[in-house]
Amino acid sequence: MADSRFYERKGPFTTKHIAEIAEASLAEGVDGNRLILDVNALEIAGPDDVSFADNKRYQEKLTHSLAGACLVLPALADSAPAGMALLFSDSPYRSYALVAAAFYPSSPAEFEIDPKAVIGLGARIGQNTKIGPGAVIGTGAEIGPECRIEANAVIGRGVILGKGSTIGTCVSLSHCIIGCRVTIYPGTCVGQDGFGYIMNPEQHIKVPQLGRVIIGDNVEIGANVTIDRGAAGDTVIGSGCIIDNLVQIGHNVEIGAGTVIIAQAGIAGSSKLGDHVILAAQSGVSGHLKIGAGAKIAAQAGVFRDVKRGEEVCGAPAIPIRQFWRQQVRLTRLSEGKGK
Amino acid sequence: MADSRFYERKGPFTTKHIAEIAEASLAEGVDGNRLILDVNALEIAGPDDVSFADNKRYQEKLTHSLAGACLVLPALADSAPAGMALLFSDSPYRSYALVAAAFYPSSPAEFEIDPKAVIGLGARIGQNTKIGPGAVIGTGAEIGPECRIEANAVIGRGVILGKGSTIGTCVSLSHCIIGCRVTIYPGTCVGQDGFGYIMNPEQHIKVPQLGRVIIGDNVEIGANVTIDRGAAGDTVIGSGCIIDNLVQIGHNVEIGAGTVIIAQAGIAGSSKLGDHVILAAQSGVSGHLKIGAGAKIAAQAGVFRDVKRGEEVCGAPAIPIRQFWRQQVRLTRLSEGKGK
Amino acid sequence: MADSRFYERKGPFTTKHIAEIAEASLAEGVDGNRLILDVNALEIAGPDDVSFADNKRYQEKLTHSLAGACLVLPALADSAPAGMALLFSDSPYRSYALVAAAFYPSSPAEFEIDPKAVIGLGARIGQNTKIGPGAVIGTGAEIGPECRIEANAVIGRGVILGKGSTIGTCVSLSHCIIGCRVTIYPGTCVGQDGFGYIMNPEQHIKVPQLGRVIIGDNVEIGANVTIDRGAAGDTVIGSGCIIDNLVQIGHNVEIGAGTVIIAQAGIAGSSKLGDHVILAAQSGVSGHLKIGAGAKIAAQAGVFRDVKRGEEVCGAPAIPIRQFWRQQVRLTRLSEGKGK
Repeated sequence: MADSRFYERKGPFTTKHIAEIAEASLAEGVDGNRLILDVNALEIAGPDDVSFADNKRYQEKLTHSLAGACLVLPALADSAPAGMALLFSDSPYRSYALVAAAFYPSSPAEFEIDPKAVIGLGARIGQNTKIGPGAVIGTGAEIGPECRIEANAVIGRGVILGKGSTIGTCVSLSHCIIGCRVTIYPGTCVGQDGFGYIMNPEQHIKVPQLGRVIIGDNVEIGANVTIDRGAAGDTVIGSGCIIDNLVQIGHNVEIGAGTVIIAQAGIAGSSKLGDHVILAAQSGVSGHLKIGAGAKIAAQAGVFRDVKRGEEVCGAPAIPIRQFWRQQVRLTRLSEGKGK
Repeated sequence: MADSRFYERKGPFTTKHIAEIAEASLAEGVDGNRLILDVNALEIAGPDDVSFADNKRYQEKLTHSLAGACLVLPALADSAPAGMALLFSDSPYRSYALVAAAFYPSSPAEFEIDPKAVIGLGARIGQNTKIGPGAVIGTGAEIGPECRIEANAVIGRGVILGKGSTIGTCVSLSHCIIGCRVTIYPGTCVGQDGFGYIMNPEQHIKVPQLGRVIIGDNVEIGANVTIDRGAAGDTVIGSGCIIDNLVQIGHNVEIGAGTVIIAQAGIAGSSKLGDHVILAAQSGVSGHLKIGAGAKIAAQAGVFRDVKRGEEVCGAPAIPIRQFWRQQVRLTRLSEGKGK
Repeated sequence: MADSRFYERKGPFTTKHIAEIAEASLAEGVDGNRLILDVNALEIAGPDDVSFADNKRYQEKLTHSLAGACLVLPALADSAPAGMALLFSDSPYRSYALVAAAFYPSSPAEFEIDPKAVIGLGARIGQNTKIGPGAVIGTGAEIGPECRIEANAVIGRGVILGKGSTIGTCVSLSHCIIGCRVTIYPGTCVGQDGFGYIMNPEQHIKVPQLGRVIIGDNVEIGANVTIDRGAAGDTVIGSGCIIDNLVQIGHNVEIGAGTVIIAQAGIAGSSKLGDHVILAAQSGVSGHLKIGAGAKIAAQAGVFRDVKRGEEVCGAPAIPIRQFWRQQVRLTRLSEGKGK
């Protein structure tokens, strides 16, 4: 499926091996030794491919698919054509993700420690870590094993990076301690001074920013994101968070585990988000607020007050989502001249 | 006009030559051999400069201008002072743009292929292509002729770049195929993984992103933009699109030819935009939508439903622009206590 | 207080010396030779630390604090525990900022002029200026004394940088003249072409951008910001402005002294902002507008008309803040069925 200019395909894998990877089970009568060469969508897949169907909406496509094998919900088994090797999974899309990752693991680095990388005094580099040309590792930084630092990334003095983390091209890191299996995409800046000033008509006075950024394990941070370090104390990103492109995170923000922040959203200084919050695209959270665990902030919402655990808010200023839609209905009726 | 620290001026050019460049015609009696040294605005221009007047609002300024030559609408001819060499054009601003580009072509590169650039194994570099210091070209990349890769840009493995394209400083490109005469400004990231996860309370599962970014010809992409590659299939930017700074384009978005996307706008995954759509600043388009050709999305609009060909929408959630303004009027009247 | 991986602490300082730095005065009976080792918050500070209390809300914390010394409002003196060395200040937070900066001056550069920096022909570098590895200085650039250019920053041909300025990692500068004591954070792009096109169904025509960016003294510009150069004439950022992350400033924008622009805000081309304007986060100002001195634009506001000196506006389209809240109240009442 994937363009070989950019992706290196592994395999072939047997259906039995794929079932193991996928945490799926082979349907009765499927030949566990059948070889599969690739993953593909139902409508494109051929006899050497494995596909997936995780929803009744795909029933029709499944019936007409030429895929050699398919990860399916057991309930869809009857819709599959004869001869298709079925692999049952309760979560076929998840199974597909696991299998696709096996066929297409991250492309190998094109460098070991490139001679054009710059390694500062006293910096420690773990085993099997690759560092690209032009990357700069500051004095005393500690880069764990099996990391990958892409070309022209700059990692500041003293930064700690856990095992198996990847830092993209042209990323800037400073004043931060980062966990294991963290991926940071190109152009992102972590650990620069927060926006802390004493406003003053003659000249604003900068308040020294003396904290850090602490990032947990298994975090993904998109491209051209900005995460400021704490003023006193730390900015904290919990384990398992996923952060999209062009997001802004102010100083001393604390974010719980598994929280999801979509593109162009922003969080002002010192706000605390619980676990598994969702901040949709282009939304904003004002400073010094508390957003409870599991809260959902709609796209473009502007949050200016605390949000309770599990609450869903929408609009600017953000209000409970049901109230928001009630207002919209009223407003529409009004503008149609039915406003009483 | 332009500061010689930064710009190198060509010329002088004769009025006849300028008329050719400008796709304009000399007024009767104008000396085609008169030499012009520079371009300048009407109020600043002197006898050696060519200026332009493309609107009746400039009539007064035209009358008092000291410009030696002027690109004008024929209808404005009578307002020009005696002795000014008039060049008639139906689109004097367009003519000015052409002439200004002749006086001030892009400044020449300060490097050929800089010895501090890094060229990967098997990468092919076209004739007359310039590559700045610290730029990194990945394994097997194909850079066309007459391209310019600025300092510290990073071009990943296998990337294809067409003839005459310019890649700015600190740009990151990967997994992409880019057309001819494309300009990408500094700090922009193209081709990184899209935001594809299966949400999961224990740990979000990443869905491998196996597509590409395909960019047509004559595209301009601003600074610190982010364009994610497709999950399966491609993210596509049509020929002639112009994209401003800090724009976010999600995976599998497809954008038609000539579409205009202004600063800080964002498009979520899998949405399709037709040709010549305008997305104004800070607007957002939700995922999996269709925006018809020629549609106009107002600044800060939040689009959560399909938009028809040529439709203009405004507000968040976005509604037809007339309806939006009707609501605003009603709301204003209401808050003034006239709300019945 | 601060993590020694990232920060180098100076001192100890005597209370007398601290009072001088802080522009504060020692309370009667305080031993001016008492040594202080660090700064810290009231609740964490110990007998070797100096803290601050600038608000009656901190009275309780002050009473129970173990801090050896404290910068306080004279009115809070009675709340301090016996034995605490009091330093009186009318603005204790400001005093704290000055003292914290003395204990923790910017960490020293890890380089002088790094051998892996690239210095263009005819570029001039002032005394005591440090240039990091991979940084590129263009032909004829003039970098003042006591500047610091971090790793992989790219400074274009002819750029002028005043005394004591700091340019962050992976910053791109071109076509700009920058004052003294300016700090630009990582990933920011200044001086690229503005978004100037003549819209055209066949092919948009680029208007040559022949101006510059002029930045005053004592300006701070956050991470991943974009500031375009003027089309004809200049984009101007006044002295003392502070600009947060991911802000967009279009071509020919002019910004007065001391203006504050918070994260993800944007200003479209040719708008003029007076002195000491505040643009809150994610707000937008449309093109060709005038925003008077001291105006306040609320978070996420969308400004489509001029704003008067000192006016406060909110909402999209932005209206005077009192009117905005009146509308919100009406709308809430309406949606609760009380709308008459």
